[in-house]
Amino acid sequence: VPHRGCAYGCARVGRNGKPFEAITVTHVDTSTAVLADLKAMCDVVKAVSPDTLVIVDAVCSAAGEELRMDEWGVDFVLTGSQKAFGVPPGLSIMCASQKAMSRLLPKDKIKNYFCNMQLWLPIMEAYEARKPSYFATPACNLIGALRVGLEQMQDHPNGMDDYFRLHRENKTKLHKIIQGEMGLELLTESSEIASNLLTCMKYPAGKGPEILPIMKKKGWILAAGLHPEVGGTYFRMGHMGYSVTTKPEYCTDLLKDLKDTLEGK
Amino acid sequence: VPHRGCAYGCARVGRNGKPFEAITVTHVDTSTAVLADLKAMCDVVKAVSPDTLVIVDAVCSAAGEELRMDEWGVDFVLTGSQKAFGVPPGLSIMCASQKAMSRLLPKDKIKNYFCNMQLWLPIMEAYEARKPSYFATPACNLIGALRVGLEQMQDHPNGMDDYFRLHRENKTKLHKIIQGEMGLELLTESSEIASNLLTCMKYPAGKGPEILPIMKKKGWILAAGLHPEVGGTYFRMGHMGYSVTTKPEYCTDLLKDLKDTLEGK
Repeated sequence: VPHRGCAYGCARVGRNGKPFEAITVTHVDTSTAVLADLKAMCDVVKAVSPDTLVIVDAVCSAAGEELRMDEWGVDFVLTGSQKAFGVPPGLSIMCASQKAMSRLLPKDKIKNYFCNMQLWLPIMEAYEARKPSYFATPACNLIGALRVGLEQMQDHPNGMDDYFRLHRENKTKLHKIIQGEMGLELLTESSEIASNLLTCMKYPAGKGPEILPIMKKKGWILAAGLHPEVGGTYFRMGHMGYSVTTKPEYCTDLLKDLKDTLEGK
Repeated sequence: VPHRGCAYGCARVGRNGKPFEAITVTHVDTSTAVLADLKAMCDVVKAVSPDTLVIVDAVCSAAGEELRMDEWGVDFVLTGSQKAFGVPPGLSIMCASQKAMSRLLPKDKIKNYFCNMQLWLPIMEAYEARKPSYFATPACNLIGALRVGLEQMQDHPNGMDDYFRLHRENKTKLHKIIQGEMGLELLTESSEIASNLLTCMKYPAGKGPEILPIMKKKGWILAAGLHPEVGGTYFRMGHMGYSVTTKPEYCTDLLKDLKDTLEGK
């Protein structure tokens, strides 16, 4: 289990005889679609170095991939509004454990104004107590949209459990078409270690990034590969939120058009 | 001319025999509606201490109050999208002169990531050259709204000149009603030194903040006074953008309802 091994190394080594203050993990790597086994990593850190904070970049995972902060022992999650929350971009969303909050530097040691969590904290506490408070004008329209996004996710019969399940099942279905019917190769070694929200596929022989603008003309936005070493060999398809739960035919229609495009139609 | 005197002091004194690096000015003070005589202050700084940067907080002024960076010699303007631009809140808008840009610290000396202008600069230059570039996902919906806001402002026959004029004339009209017909006192010593986008009025004898929720029920949002010493003695009314250029009757209708409310109707 490479993820567990990596976490074991990080959690055990420390520096100057002291455990590391924190380990950081990218839950889903946007450039390659690799999904980290976050729970396994948390288990290792808890067992080997319980004081080490687990900080997760969940920009490309939160809301769509299973992530249980309290249960797994994740201390800090940082994400954005524009992926599986189904909300326009512009909000940076942060969740911190009590342990993480207790490690915050004092207000005046944080060399930052807008991004100083100590300045936001009393505001957030006032909001929770339904009291008006002010630090900077919030992006109200986006926060209204976030509310709608959160409600839509929780409206499933079993709430977030269903939401996660729908994304997992959708990936299985799509990968079956991609690997089976279309004979394309995933960038990841297996489907199991790939994200449920994003698929990276290798271009078949003789094809390359020229298919992306053709697909765009057909109404689909696919993204180019991003990895510095192999970026030119693959492309990326997002499948999260609305296009999974409400209009899953978008995903399969896209693959039909992709098949045609690769066959020169 | 108090503003000029103040700027003279700031620009002249310096520290340790060196001129000040910058002076900062709030163009319109949100809490009191005082409008700084920015041009006069710039003239003084240029004459007395030409190396000093003029940095303007224009959150409550930009787009509605006259502000001419190149002509007046303003080096940096910081504002938001949610006032006279008529755009939802969420964008921080910054304009810098070449002089200000030449004084930026190098990238690694700026103890900040998202707000590090050196990291944004190559992205902005790429956008200007119509080349794709990426640092952080922009708040596309708000940027689309900003485009619409900017176009609406420039769509007047004489562009921004008309937009400024409409705000000046609207203030004159409103202050005449407020001071004349309604017999209310402004918080500022005169109408001349008050903003064209915002009016602070003192409560008449026997009235106080209880009128604000009554006005809210009638469909108008007025804001309480904010100044730490006299906050309880006055209230604030915004008049900018749409409610000036497109629906000026909103302003006069509000004052009619305010008159009724103050008369207990």
